[in-house]
Amino acid sequence: MTSAADTQAPHHPGPLGETVVYAYLGPEGTFTEAALLSIPGAQDAIRLPAPSVNSALEMVRSGRASAAVVPIENSVEGGVSATLDALSAGTPLRILREVLVPITFVLAVRPGVALADIRTVSTHTHAWAQCRDWAAVNIPEAEYLPSASTAAAAVELSEADPSFDAAICAPLVAQRLGLEVLAEDIGDVRDAVTRFVMISLPGLLPEPTGSDKTTLVIPLPEDHPGALMEILEQFSSRGVNLSRIESRPTGMFLGDYFFSIDADGHVADARMADTLKGLHRISPDLRFLGSYPRADHRETEISRHTSDEAFRAADIWLESLLNGY
Amino acid sequence: MTSAADTQAPHHPGPLGETVVYAYLGPEGTFTEAALLSIPGAQDAIRLPAPSVNSALEMVRSGRASAAVVPIENSVEGGVSATLDALSAGTPLRILREVLVPITFVLAVRPGVALADIRTVSTHTHAWAQCRDWAAVNIPEAEYLPSASTAAAAVELSEADPSFDAAICAPLVAQRLGLEVLAEDIGDVRDAVTRFVMISLPGLLPEPTGSDKTTLVIPLPEDHPGALMEILEQFSSRGVNLSRIESRPTGMFLGDYFFSIDADGHVADARMADTLKGLHRISPDLRFLGSYPRADHRETEISRHTSDEAFRAADIWLESLLNGY
Amino acid sequence: MTSAADTQAPHHPGPLGETVVYAYLGPEGTFTEAALLSIPGAQDAIRLPAPSVNSALEMVRSGRASAAVVPIENSVEGGVSATLDALSAGTPLRILREVLVPITFVLAVRPGVALADIRTVSTHTHAWAQCRDWAAVNIPEAEYLPSASTAAAAVELSEADPSFDAAICAPLVAQRLGLEVLAEDIGDVRDAVTRFVMISLPGLLPEPTGSDKTTLVIPLPEDHPGALMEILEQFSSRGVNLSRIESRPTGMFLGDYFFSIDADGHVADARMADTLKGLHRISPDLRFLGSYPRADHRETEISRHTSDEAFRAADIWLESLLNGY
Amino acid sequence: MTSAADTQAPHHPGPLGETVVYAYLGPEGTFTEAALLSIPGAQDAIRLPAPSVNSALEMVRSGRASAAVVPIENSVEGGVSATLDALSAGTPLRILREVLVPITFVLAVRPGVALADIRTVSTHTHAWAQCRDWAAVNIPEAEYLPSASTAAAAVELSEADPSFDAAICAPLVAQRLGLEVLAEDIGDVRDAVTRFVMISLPGLLPEPTGSDKTTLVIPLPEDHPGALMEILEQFSSRGVNLSRIESRPTGMFLGDYFFSIDADGHVADARMADTLKGLHRISPDLRFLGSYPRADHRETEISRHTSDEAFRAADIWLESLLNGY
Repeated sequence: MTSAADTQAPHHPGPLGETVVYAYLGPEGTFTEAALLSIPGAQDAIRLPAPSVNSALEMVRSGRASAAVVPIENSVEGGVSATLDALSAGTPLRILREVLVPITFVLAVRPGVALADIRTVSTHTHAWAQCRDWAAVNIPEAEYLPSASTAAAAVELSEADPSFDAAICAPLVAQRLGLEVLAEDIGDVRDAVTRFVMISLPGLLPEPTGSDKTTLVIPLPEDHPGALMEILEQFSSRGVNLSRIESRPTGMFLGDYFFSIDADGHVADARMADTLKGLHRISPDLRFLGSYPRADHRETEISRHTSDEAFRAADIWLESLLNGY
Repeated sequence: MTSAADTQAPHHPGPLGETVVYAYLGPEGTFTEAALLSIPGAQDAIRLPAPSVNSALEMVRSGRASAAVVPIENSVEGGVSATLDALSAGTPLRILREVLVPITFVLAVRPGVALADIRTVSTHTHAWAQCRDWAAVNIPEAEYLPSASTAAAAVELSEADPSFDAAICAPLVAQRLGLEVLAEDIGDVRDAVTRFVMISLPGLLPEPTGSDKTTLVIPLPEDHPGALMEILEQFSSRGVNLSRIESRPTGMFLGDYFFSIDADGHVADARMADTLKGLHRISPDLRFLGSYPRADHRETEISRHTSDEAFRAADIWLESLLNGY
Repeated sequence: MTSAADTQAPHHPGPLGETVVYAYLGPEGTFTEAALLSIPGAQDAIRLPAPSVNSALEMVRSGRASAAVVPIENSVEGGVSATLDALSAGTPLRILREVLVPITFVLAVRPGVALADIRTVSTHTHAWAQCRDWAAVNIPEAEYLPSASTAAAAVELSEADPSFDAAICAPLVAQRLGLEVLAEDIGDVRDAVTRFVMISLPGLLPEPTGSDKTTLVIPLPEDHPGALMEILEQFSSRGVNLSRIESRPTGMFLGDYFFSIDADGHVADARMADTLKGLHRISPDLRFLGSYPRADHRETEISRHTSDEAFRAADIWLESLLNGY
Repeated sequence: MTSAADTQAPHHPGPLGETVVYAYLGPEGTFTEAALLSIPGAQDAIRLPAPSVNSALEMVRSGRASAAVVPIENSVEGGVSATLDALSAGTPLRILREVLVPITFVLAVRPGVALADIRTVSTHTHAWAQCRDWAAVNIPEAEYLPSASTAAAAVELSEADPSFDAAICAPLVAQRLGLEVLAEDIGDVRDAVTRFVMISLPGLLPEPTGSDKTTLVIPLPEDHPGALMEILEQFSSRGVNLSRIESRPTGMFLGDYFFSIDADGHVADARMADTLKGLHRISPDLRFLGSYPRADHRETEISRHTSDEAFRAADIWLESLLNGY
């Protein structure tokens, strides 16, 4: 199925006619910018790289940007913990959309440079960790120089007088900068995908599409065996599946946790609304970070007992009891 | 604490000024009539003994009686299974009130008869089972004659030319009939209490008092390990305690069950209403048999997470999310 | 499938060669005796009717009988609560076998008596309650006289000078006593079945047959929402299904319960043994009342995760961990 | 309390008398090396920096190192996902110990350099993200140069002719290299702590201390609402608390997860052993990654129902049942 979110402009970053401003975790040319560029309309928007997830979100909170794109899962260039932590505190924000970007690395050089010429290679340390096996075999003599991001390495390589001979970066950046690609797909993790989210201030929610995700931050109200169960029971008893769970220390003191959770479905679905109300009762400080279309379009499976119809029927039945029937 | 239900007229059996008609599991003088007589106003009402629980309830269903009083737990004279089964099928009925009656037996004789004179004794078979130990010691020679109820034995003894010398019955009946009590409290179960319920057609529910009970009949939707858990989870996840549970075969075929359940609280409490809606979703054929004051006035304990305030706060929070805040 | 229990002599009531003595809830000719007679070998055993469930069990506890047969579910002549309560206290006993007896009533008379001649009819009060509808139509003028049991009515009718004209009783008794049956199957509950159990002192357990039942008495350790869940979780987390559950007041004080539970499977099954150990930890005073073949031969369904093989594999795996592999 | 693990040599990395070889996620001078150095005996051991978590673990698997120290939670210099993923596949490994290292950053310069002189500053990108706020205020003109690690920046600064003026690094490294610290604790996350683990081949387990942790990798056997609950129920029903949970895609295909879990207690504790056996039954491919002392020495709370005594009592009770008592 296709969802409205694929074909339309992004949700409410800016009124019609105005130029939309996006912040993203920079620098330019990273996988994060690739994620941003995949969003309809982003090509024509103003795109502001931010030096950290916090500053990208700050630009949204202060109104300087309509939305920000940051990594939230499996990022090769970091930022995931920062994103989880930043969303769990401060001015409330909403996720409007998720974007999946396949992570593949190329070895890029200035036109004319051959493999045998490479004495120094630069990239982000995490990318280097994933490409070391390839490098050990193919450019065993090359010395490694760290860069702030894969893109930063590519950019420096494309500028005058670079301090190294090759960069390991995303295919997109190499192409955009006119670099020559000597080897493709050189990382040792096949089919790696990073998940990014587009974040904005609270406002109208994306329409439910039948293939949605709801993201929550839930502080653990008490730390005892079964406390997490009480939280998860709220989901399972309404037939709501989870696609991600992560415990994170609150940073206040040891043994104090919150959970970052992705659940299948939209708050406009009766079973999700009921789940959220149940969660609010046991952990009133939970944060709703948004309901938005799934990037993989996988449809949410709904059991007979937890359909909107079942909820409506139960409401009507209870109403009749209270009215004496 | 005292509840409204103690001091006011019973709920809606009949408009003011009209004489109220009560059915009850007869015959006259049983513990069931004692239960009925303890209800305010019943002394002045028309009281119709019925030969079976089914016929007592039929009198309510047909409108011949405003309400019926029948045993529902631990009855010495039977009827409990019949009551549970009768409430689970047919025209819906409501429990408006419960009554607890202590079960104590006396040995009653016609004035002038002494222990040593007793050759035959009559009572209901179940009462006889409970008093046999006492009889073996105190009237070892006496032959036992069954009666349809403890009261029936007492009544026959008080009439002309009884076919036995003594009756084992409730203290109340012996006193009312002018019989002489030769021994008190002769049953071998100390502190036995039978629970009776007053049943009427659906109508206005008794007001919540803070010490209420809700009775339900819940068919087991599927028979697999965990199916009962799914039902009980609906209660425990809303902090609702059970005070009675009984599985009963539906009578259709083996392995098909319904559950007869008493839970602490009133359907007007948010946590009970939410529980009922959850139950309706997984077992849509459940029956609500009423919310009514507890006879023992024990106050329902409510955790912070399941108070009406917590439910209201969750509703408001969800509403705000859906409105974009 | 057939189980060993069908074709062999009953388990360990008495050494070979000695005459076995059975107690049962009397009097003679009741459905309980019918249950006893269906047990292989019982025809040739000494069968002692007991006046109450307690006294039948006492005969076992004192050694006067090798085993006792008493009703445990849906009995038309009572005893069920007495059986549940008696098994929950006192010297431990074991259920070795269950017997299902279909409950059907006949109207029996002395040879030569016609329907139109019947002025008085006798039976147990509970049987009368189930046959009243038939009686109202077919013998509307007949007066009801209670008897201690359905069999007692039949016996009196067969003796010289009975005080009534007809008895409502089990087909078997009417036949044995040479009474004439004027109408069959006159109860208003179709397909009613009563469950009886054969009880003995602890000893060797019946062999597992693949279609077994385990009966337990479990005191509720604490009375709070979720306490029952904790108990049931022990079953469901090992894939053990329940076929009966009943809460019973302990008789000590209000709000104090035990649960009488039948579960599918045998204590020799790994998943049942593990369940029992889990139950013992949370409610150390529980009682194991026996593992024995199901009367309906329905095979226990076992999931892959809870098979004996899965348990064995887990044991081996853990052992290897502890040994440093 | 103090545990054996604090005062004795590390568990079985090498026989007495031989020099122990440790691998660790390098380069030298990072927080990971600080973690390693805090382990008794590590000062005198051979310490081999590895370029990636995978290669550090490979050195253990191949026998080149007795143990490896790698980050597993909240690392400022990455590696956490790599560690979680590496432990979930390949030759089984064991965690023998955890080490907590507080993360604080200093601004280090060569002796004689003042704040006002700083034009360029180098550190790992994640460290830079955490110190940017301080830098914006205190060295607003300084340009940022990425380094492969905080230590690498410090090392380069201490060598001849560095390409920048200041490094942001751990206090320890600055001190060891004789650098001058111009500002301390300049990160914006207070009380940040990174958790490292010492990993070895399977062998004897560390002794239980009463304050232990068990780490597991549990594949989700099926993806439906409640599947995670089934796993967590194994913990909660034995009173075992979790201190960390993280879902990780298996990398095979979307929707396929494993859980990385830390639980309170030691596999030598009866309740943990029982939990592991329960987990093995529902997810037979789970991995036990070790039981080892908690770095924070927080004692495990044990309820009466889940003590070793309760387990032993249940075992004895069941044994007696099976023997016919």
